[in-house]
Amino acid sequence: MLNETIKNQLAHRTIREFKAQKIPEEVFAQLMEVARRTATSVGMQACSIIRVVDQELKNQIAGICNQEYVARAPELLIFIVDQYRNSQIAKEKGYQAETAKDMDRFFQSFTDACLMAQNVVNAAESLGLGTVYLGSILNDSEKICELLKLPQLTFPVLGLGIGYPNQNPQLKPRMEMRLRVFENAYATFENYLDEIKTYDEEMRTYYDLRDPGRPMDSFSNQVVARFSQANPRRQEILNIIRKQGFNLNIK
Amino acid sequence: MLNETIKNQLAHRTIREFKAQKIPEEVFAQLMEVARRTATSVGMQACSIIRVVDQELKNQIAGICNQEYVARAPELLIFIVDQYRNSQIAKEKGYQAETAKDMDRFFQSFTDACLMAQNVVNAAESLGLGTVYLGSILNDSEKICELLKLPQLTFPVLGLGIGYPNQNPQLKPRMEMRLRVFENAYATFENYLDEIKTYDEEMRTYYDLRDPGRPMDSFSNQVVARFSQANPRRQEILNIIRKQGFNLNIK
Repeated sequence: MLNETIKNQLAHRTIREFKAQKIPEEVFAQLMEVARRTATSVGMQACSIIRVVDQELKNQIAGICNQEYVARAPELLIFIVDQYRNSQIAKEKGYQAETAKDMDRFFQSFTDACLMAQNVVNAAESLGLGTVYLGSILNDSEKICELLKLPQLTFPVLGLGIGYPNQNPQLKPRMEMRLRVFENAYATFENYLDEIKTYDEEMRTYYDLRDPGRPMDSFSNQVVARFSQANPRRQEILNIIRKQGFNLNIK
Repeated sequence: MLNETIKNQLAHRTIREFKAQKIPEEVFAQLMEVARRTATSVGMQACSIIRVVDQELKNQIAGICNQEYVARAPELLIFIVDQYRNSQIAKEKGYQAETAKDMDRFFQSFTDACLMAQNVVNAAESLGLGTVYLGSILNDSEKICELLKLPQLTFPVLGLGIGYPNQNPQLKPRMEMRLRVFENAYATFENYLDEIKTYDEEMRTYYDLRDPGRPMDSFSNQVVARFSQANPRRQEILNIIRKQGFNLNIK
């Protein structure tokens, strides 16, 4: 069962440091062909990609991400929700598509964008490239919309850096799947700290290359630390989605 | 560049009809191990999977999807947003995590769930399995929450049917990527119908196995047809997300 595809998937690590070497255009074109063949909700292909090649723009995005290495990624892609293109197609057919603004369509596009990103990641890794997802572009989704000139009915989903790896990080410990896969109905546990005890320990054997001097904190401590941080601009994401023309339809 | 991984990705078709043959448990376990290794936002692993094995439950979900073949999928997985588990972990550490309800965390989980689904799809297809995404579970997200006993701070994202293919569909035509990939900023086109003219024609050479007697309609006609259909329950998705405990934080 351990074919090349799965071997690569099981070896997935986030790569944040890349060689200066560019990705050849034919390799990039191949990745985009994979993106094109990704499954898409009801065939609508309602997501798009902004390929960021301008260095100043990369710097600005790295600023929003608060991750300086973003500016050095050989390829930087921003996957976006895109109901704009299809709404224009409908308009040219004489149909004013009010439903293009619906949140269920937003979520279809959002899903499409994520599936496409992961498909590109799997293709890239199969070619020996490394990748880093950048959820941090949503630190300021409004600013991203402005920088990338995103029209109404579009919205940024996820960034992705790609390049030839210049680091070899340790495989990061992960929670056991028995805590994440349930039969027929969601299963709760009486004491999660007991259930993740081994995992909590294991996490303390992991060294993050961004902070190589000391092991990581236990998972449960990380969870508390993460929940203790709130970014008001991030929390307001639905307001920016509305500003991009979507109809939240709250009752 | 055409390694096995990419060959499979370029050959992706949705498979809706499967052989009766079950997926061996060790193969399923391998898929779950791939799921486990999927990239996850800030390491939080805040998504989960419900594996639907009960036939009556499958039938009910097929009813919601309005797709009878869903009931016959050898494996049926529902990927879910899951901020519940981590909020419980925090609680056991004595921290009441109000921010677990934030919509940016919801979107992190939603993204994680989609990335995981696509990673599983790529692994499955590399093993000769076929897959069908089921966005249609969101036809009634409230009912899905109820059927799968999803607790507060969880939400269904996407369904996935997996099995050994019992059909061989045509590769479905897709729009050219020059209409979907833009450098540095979103690019609009003056006349989309002109730009997709060839694609519109090409779509009319595609025969959907669900309706084998006649070719598909042009893409632009499909777009209009899709936008003309609205499902009020689907449009109300944010209300159900709020009902599941998330704080929409609308200003």
